Amino acid sequence: MFRHEKSLLHPVRIERPNPHYATLLQEQIGGSNGELKAAMQYMAQSFRVKDPEIRDLFMDIASEELGHMEMVARTINLLNGHEVQANQVGGGSIQAHVVGGLSPLLTDSSGYPWSGVYVNCTGDLAADLLSNIAAEQRAKVVYEYLYRQIKDEGVRETIDFLLNREEAHNALFREALNRVKDTGSNVDFGVDEDARLYFDLSTPGRYFDDPVPSEPAFRSPRQNNQAHNNPHPPNQR
Amino acid sequence: MFRHEKSLLHPVRIERPNPHYATLLQEQIGGSNGELKAAMQYMAQSFRVKDPEIRDLFMDIASEELGHMEMVARTINLLNGHEVQANQVGGGSIQAHVVGGLSPLLTDSSGYPWSGVYVNCTGDLAADLLSNIAAEQRAKVVYEYLYRQIKDEGVRETIDFLLNREEAHNALFREALNRVKDTGSNVDFGVDEDARLYFDLSTPGRYFDDPVPSEPAFRSPRQNNQAHNNPHPPNQR
Amino acid sequence: MFRHEKSLLHPVRIERPNPHYATLLQEQIGGSNGELKAAMQYMAQSFRVKDPEIRDLFMDIASEELGHMEMVARTINLLNGHEVQANQVGGGSIQAHVVGGLSPLLTDSSGYPWSGVYVNCTGDLAADLLSNIAAEQRAKVVYEYLYRQIKDEGVRETIDFLLNREEAHNALFREALNRVKDTGSNVDFGVDEDARLYFDLSTPGRYFDDPVPSEPAFRSPRQNNQAHNNPHPPNQR
Amino acid sequence: MFRHEKSLLHPVRIERPNPHYATLLQEQIGGSNGELKAAMQYMAQSFRVKDPEIRDLFMDIASEELGHMEMVARTINLLNGHEVQANQVGGGSIQAHVVGGLSPLLTDSSGYPWSGVYVNCTGDLAADLLSNIAAEQRAKVVYEYLYRQIKDEGVRETIDFLLNREEAHNALFREALNRVKDTGSNVDFGVDEDARLYFDLSTPGRYFDDPVPSEPAFRSPRQNNQAHNNPHPPNQR
Amino acid sequence: MFRHEKSLLHPVRIERPNPHYATLLQEQIGGSNGELKAAMQYMAQSFRVKDPEIRDLFMDIASEELGHMEMVARTINLLNGHEVQANQVGGGSIQAHVVGGLSPLLTDSSGYPWSGVYVNCTGDLAADLLSNIAAEQRAKVVYEYLYRQIKDEGVRETIDFLLNREEAHNALFREALNRVKDTGSNVDFGVDEDARLYFDLSTPGRYFDDPVPSEPAFRSPRQNNQAHNNPHPPNQR
Amino acid sequence: MFRHEKSLLHPVRIERPNPHYATLLQEQIGGSNGELKAAMQYMAQSFRVKDPEIRDLFMDIASEELGHMEMVARTINLLNGHEVQANQVGGGSIQAHVVGGLSPLLTDSSGYPWSGVYVNCTGDLAADLLSNIAAEQRAKVVYEYLYRQIKDEGVRETIDFLLNREEAHNALFREALNRVKDTGSNVDFGVDEDARLYFDLSTPGRYFDDPVPSEPAFRSPRQNNQAHNNPHPPNQR
Repeated sequence: MFRHEKSLLHPVRIERPNPHYATLLQEQIGGSNGELKAAMQYMAQSFRVKDPEIRDLFMDIASEELGHMEMVARTINLLNGHEVQANQVGGGSIQAHVVGGLSPLLTDSSGYPWSGVYVNCTGDLAADLLSNIAAEQRAKVVYEYLYRQIKDEGVRETIDFLLNREEAHNALFREALNRVKDTGSNVDFGVDEDARLYFDLSTPGRYFDDPVPSEPAFRSPRQNNQAHNNPHPPNQR
Repeated sequence: MFRHEKSLLHPVRIERPNPHYATLLQEQIGGSNGELKAAMQYMAQSFRVKDPEIRDLFMDIASEELGHMEMVARTINLLNGHEVQANQVGGGSIQAHVVGGLSPLLTDSSGYPWSGVYVNCTGDLAADLLSNIAAEQRAKVVYEYLYRQIKDEGVRETIDFLLNREEAHNALFREALNRVKDTGSNVDFGVDEDARLYFDLSTPGRYFDDPVPSEPAFRSPRQNNQAHNNPHPPNQR
Repeated sequence: MFRHEKSLLHPVRIERPNPHYATLLQEQIGGSNGELKAAMQYMAQSFRVKDPEIRDLFMDIASEELGHMEMVARTINLLNGHEVQANQVGGGSIQAHVVGGLSPLLTDSSGYPWSGVYVNCTGDLAADLLSNIAAEQRAKVVYEYLYRQIKDEGVRETIDFLLNREEAHNALFREALNRVKDTGSNVDFGVDEDARLYFDLSTPGRYFDDPVPSEPAFRSPRQNNQAHNNPHPPNQR
Repeated sequence: MFRHEKSLLHPVRIERPNPHYATLLQEQIGGSNGELKAAMQYMAQSFRVKDPEIRDLFMDIASEELGHMEMVARTINLLNGHEVQANQVGGGSIQAHVVGGLSPLLTDSSGYPWSGVYVNCTGDLAADLLSNIAAEQRAKVVYEYLYRQIKDEGVRETIDFLLNREEAHNALFREALNRVKDTGSNVDFGVDEDARLYFDLSTPGRYFDDPVPSEPAFRSPRQNNQAHNNPHPPNQR
Repeated sequence: MFRHEKSLLHPVRIERPNPHYATLLQEQIGGSNGELKAAMQYMAQSFRVKDPEIRDLFMDIASEELGHMEMVARTINLLNGHEVQANQVGGGSIQAHVVGGLSPLLTDSSGYPWSGVYVNCTGDLAADLLSNIAAEQRAKVVYEYLYRQIKDEGVRETIDFLLNREEAHNALFREALNRVKDTGSNVDFGVDEDARLYFDLSTPGRYFDDPVPSEPAFRSPRQNNQAHNNPHPPNQR
Repeated sequence: MFRHEKSLLHPVRIERPNPHYATLLQEQIGGSNGELKAAMQYMAQSFRVKDPEIRDLFMDIASEELGHMEMVARTINLLNGHEVQANQVGGGSIQAHVVGGLSPLLTDSSGYPWSGVYVNCTGDLAADLLSNIAAEQRAKVVYEYLYRQIKDEGVRETIDFLLNREEAHNALFREALNRVKDTGSNVDFGVDEDARLYFDLSTPGRYFDDPVPSEPAFRSPRQNNQAHNNPHPPNQR
């Protein structure tokens, strides 16, 4: 079961209303790599996971992503200001101004409604964790694109926080993948010669050798970190 | 530009028509992890890639996936037989019998049409390669589910071939990721303390430590393979 | 922010696995009147509500609906059993068997993915509360249809609990509507003669008089209840 | 069966072409609360209604809504002018300029195509009437948002007419609900203790008491009207 | 404006209820080539047509297609019988049994909701008429598939009637195309050498010569008919 | 199977980056009449065609359309420039700037993702060829709308080339239709009196006579061309 606390996971603020920025941020509520997608993906996956550690991880992060969605929604709400004025939006969705009464909506930046097809859930832990790792990386990239276009310092602080959280989740999912690497679709691993062929179908050019299939596993972040030190020391805050 | 050769990438056969199996296989034409999705994802990503090696890899595999789609479609066509008879389908989509005239269609097994939202394309190589690795793993899992339910030996041979090709692609994408691991969203890697926190929001239970962010990179499949030998020797064929 | 507790809001059980029942129940996870829709609708609406009482009500109920979704998902998970076997599903979606590995998925009973368009959010309290009242009534009706077709006593107990909760929410939303009946789109209430006309466009037949517009307000459930007693005394439990 | 008369239900005019306004108005053709949705919802519901009075009401209003759609479409057609020029649209959909040749299209203001999921039809009269009452209120709210942003006096007259008609329909649906309040899902009304609980899941704060379930019924508009007089006398026209 | 007459355009009957047949027929309400699509396509196109003859033709046929939809809906309603029982549906959509209370719904046979993207409307008469001719031919083909699978004589009579009406519409649209063949995108007809090339990209095999572009125009049905007599004399009825 | 050649089917160039033009051109990648739709429609249809000549034609053109998509994508890629800047897009989709990193995406100009429902495939050759003829005409019309709004001479050359190719395909499909006019749904041609009636349902006005059904067949382009000479001589190049 879920409980809601009225305090945000992390406070948000804006410098001033800006409907264009609000439309940009919509991508991270209702978009294909947004917070709702993340929450729903991990929650849906958790429903059939037997491993209590992984199930706990999925629900920890799913809950947090719901809290992220709330932060993004609060920010959009502030950015939308107080007047419906679609002509201030520029490109992309104007749904907040014609139907939403300036509410944050479950659509992406161009008005496509959130869809259950965003959610990858296969019932196989290795596949699902790889999906999550990819999803977190894409979410980070989207935040980077938004950061470049949104000049409001308040919003940028929120983006910075959320982007860092995607990194945290990504590291955790990779660690989880390493834990389960000898299970599920990786256990089934039965390659034959067909898995060792390279079909050079785009010509001219051939740059890769025949593939060497193996189970997917990440270099351990922990080992990794010790081995060559993280070149990006944590910021002082 | 693209050229089509009338010979299939790999021959297909069936033991006998079976509309239920045809509906199951539809998942790999028009489904979220199917062959068309794979082809379109790698093709869409290739359009902005500057690195000639990666672009070549994406188009090699995209072309092959189109050929896979053709194989699956040919198989569905054979399985659909010669009479529209929706009552032989059992669960899932009956569209081949009411609108398609037994043609393979661009829908999944339950009738949802192929959607561009299946395609993950961010313009960031690290994110896109992780998306591809996850996509190939999911495709493999779907083929495993189909294999378990389709008892036709002809179809199983085709599934076996295609499943092995997903492994090949997966190995190649992982190798490509290792090549570009110091670029794009990985280069931007700037974690602060927020990326090192674990929020224990699902209670009771806490099984993972605080995360240690690092760039995602796979253990080299080549190294890997030498180090501990692949426990699954290639089948003799 | 949201917290997850591993205990369910209410325990669930099934008599025995039944993939057909699992497909039926999917409607209340991923369908147009399901639990996720309810949770998301009230959450989305809450993001712009200024009235602290209404905002609290929306988030109380949204949180509960997420817990309902978890209950339905757990039930589906049990009903799906342990073997992918689409041929046991009968009509409707077979996605759990071809792509989901028997996981509960975010689709309706026939495989259409959950969509953000299910969510009605206008930023106007009177309109949003009416949408919620209608949504709860529809959710109740869907549970009644499922109850009639699912003979498993364990599942029926869960349906009975959830159906009763929809009643509770409905009563609360109606009380809330009565509190805000002099605000928002009801305050704007400015009818002219055009609002008092009946266009008799379907012929033959005319059964209603010219309309008498007024703000929508429910007979107070509390008053109501005292006036003529509820004919359905609470069950003993 | 349906007949079409070439005269509009009510004449429309514009002051001058304005592609931005045309895009805004698209919401009421192809949007989730637009005229086509209303027409289709009442028509779809009518197909199984046995009560001749309600069925007549649904088809009277459905026919009128088709006529409203025609009025909105005519207005959009005029506003679109004579040159495809997507750069004059501002935010939202530019489909009229790239594919529609300036025709009114079946999409909402941001380009999402009209969808059958907008239509709520449960086969239960109480639920369907509540859906209609909510739908009419939302339609009114959308017209208010459009009215605020469209400064063309001709268009505003049309919006004013249509908004008043939504009021008329709303009053009629509420009267119909009162007529059937002892049928369908209201007759099934069987609450137990679970329907009388308030789960205070969003904290801090608790503002509502335990609910008192009862069948939904509106204060009679007719009674109502006499009791405290409508404060908004009809305009002179 | 539109008027509804309670008598059907043509009476319908069934031999006995059959939920499987009901699901099959759904294709012609909510499917991509169904009656609603036809009605909406011709109506949407009519909104910008200046030629009064063509506009009249579009609205004549659009109105008739709405009447066809009503006939199909009535038939589905009868076929659905009186008990929700998804297990009697066999493949395809079970939405009538879980959410629709046995009502005809705006989805296709496998549960995909009607979509505005079915509607082709370009604002160019030649293109739109060609779209209509193709749409009518497809609608006829779908009715043929349904006819083969539905053994109920009552339903077959209705299909026979509707199929013949598609022929009538098709003949009319072809005649209309011949009338406007020197306008719109046909007038713009400006071919250069690029329009006279054949790219032989699928190998082996080349069966067509270089193309000879010309404006599309049908052999006049009237001429045609006289020239070689219709080999299918009208049935006696 | 498919092969990719790195050289484009036809070279493309632009005068200068222009994100607004990029958004306009998106219609021909991911839109309802775009190049991907064309490629997929002919490919899907080909899967069940027995006639080797028609199958070859479908795959020749499908392959070419994939090459067209590549040309459009390359052009969009150039037009998108080097900075994510959604505020330069004007109306329509901003997805390239928030999620795609300036990549060409599989959406239309307003952000709606490519959908399998664009593809018409009935398994009946006459119906499918008519669908293709209509599709090519619509594609031509869309290119005309884009041509009018895009002032970049480089892009216009590409549009001119692609528009001419649609003409070539259209001529070929019409020739193919004439070859198969005595097969499939045309062979089934069995009209009765119902196919010879005109229902005058939109009043006032009646401009067309009772229809004279016949199989659809185009005036032979070859005959046609000789008969009255093409008034548009090929350009010199």
